[in-house]
Amino acid sequence: MAFDVNQRRSGCPISSSLDVLGDKWSLLVVRDMVFVGKRYFKEFLSSDEGIATNILTDRLNRLDLIGIISKQQDPENGRQIVYTLTEKGVGLIPLLVELVCWGAIYDGAPNVDPDALKLIQRDKPGFIRKLEKGCGH
Amino acid sequence: MAFDVNQRRSGCPISSSLDVLGDKWSLLVVRDMVFVGKRYFKEFLSSDEGIATNILTDRLNRLDLIGIISKQQDPENGRQIVYTLTEKGVGLIPLLVELVCWGAIYDGAPNVDPDALKLIQRDKPGFIRKLEKGCGH
Repeated sequence: MAFDVNQRRSGCPISSSLDVLGDKWSLLVVRDMVFVGKRYFKEFLSSDEGIATNILTDRLNRLDLIGIISKQQDPENGRQIVYTLTEKGVGLIPLLVELVCWGAIYDGAPNVDPDALKLIQRDKPGFIRKLEKGCGH
Repeated sequence: MAFDVNQRRSGCPISSSLDVLGDKWSLLVVRDMVFVGKRYFKEFLSSDEGIATNILTDRLNRLDLIGIISKQQDPENGRQIVYTLTEKGVGLIPLLVELVCWGAIYDGAPNVDPDALKLIQRDKPGFIRKLEKGCGH
């Protein structure tokens, strides 16, 4: 799928953010980095949603192009690429947390511990800061 | 486009929310209701992003099916349908606010007054409550 980072349908920041982020796969890669600490292609490929290899390749390139992730050669294995979140990528954490809360509170999403949800709701900024630190920011 | 409300790719609440919300058009309809107070088909059709009639029809049906909006006959004009946000729809406001903030802070989204952004950042819960009240909740 061709992707033009300048293709925004309007000046509205909501529409613009949605255009830039693209479909759900981009956000699921960011989720894997934030909540599970994944950093390698093979790790993203193993997620429950079953992303296809070509889609994962495309979304990683797209996230890199947008400046949400950066890719470097793995210092421990020069032939492997390691992906990390940039500041712009870490800035997506509050959005991901809202997706968790909405799904759990309003949409009956499974796999959310009610006690964990209460903790998030009690101190959302604190929970976000903890995740940011986990990403090294 | 066929839509199955039970089609969720995993138990993860982020993935689940993204599956349920679908593509960007659904969230733009909710945006129009929250920030501009739109309530009629023709009003949604006139948004800057230029949504096509058939896509708008599909997304309104989808949002109704999911329980994010409800539709009634307009009491002032029985042949017209008026759309309003349910509690589940109003619950999306924090997510929309995060899309505004991310776009404005990290992605150079135009059309965001820097002073307005500062006000949101200073008291995000207060800004969210104001929008919720504007939706009658």
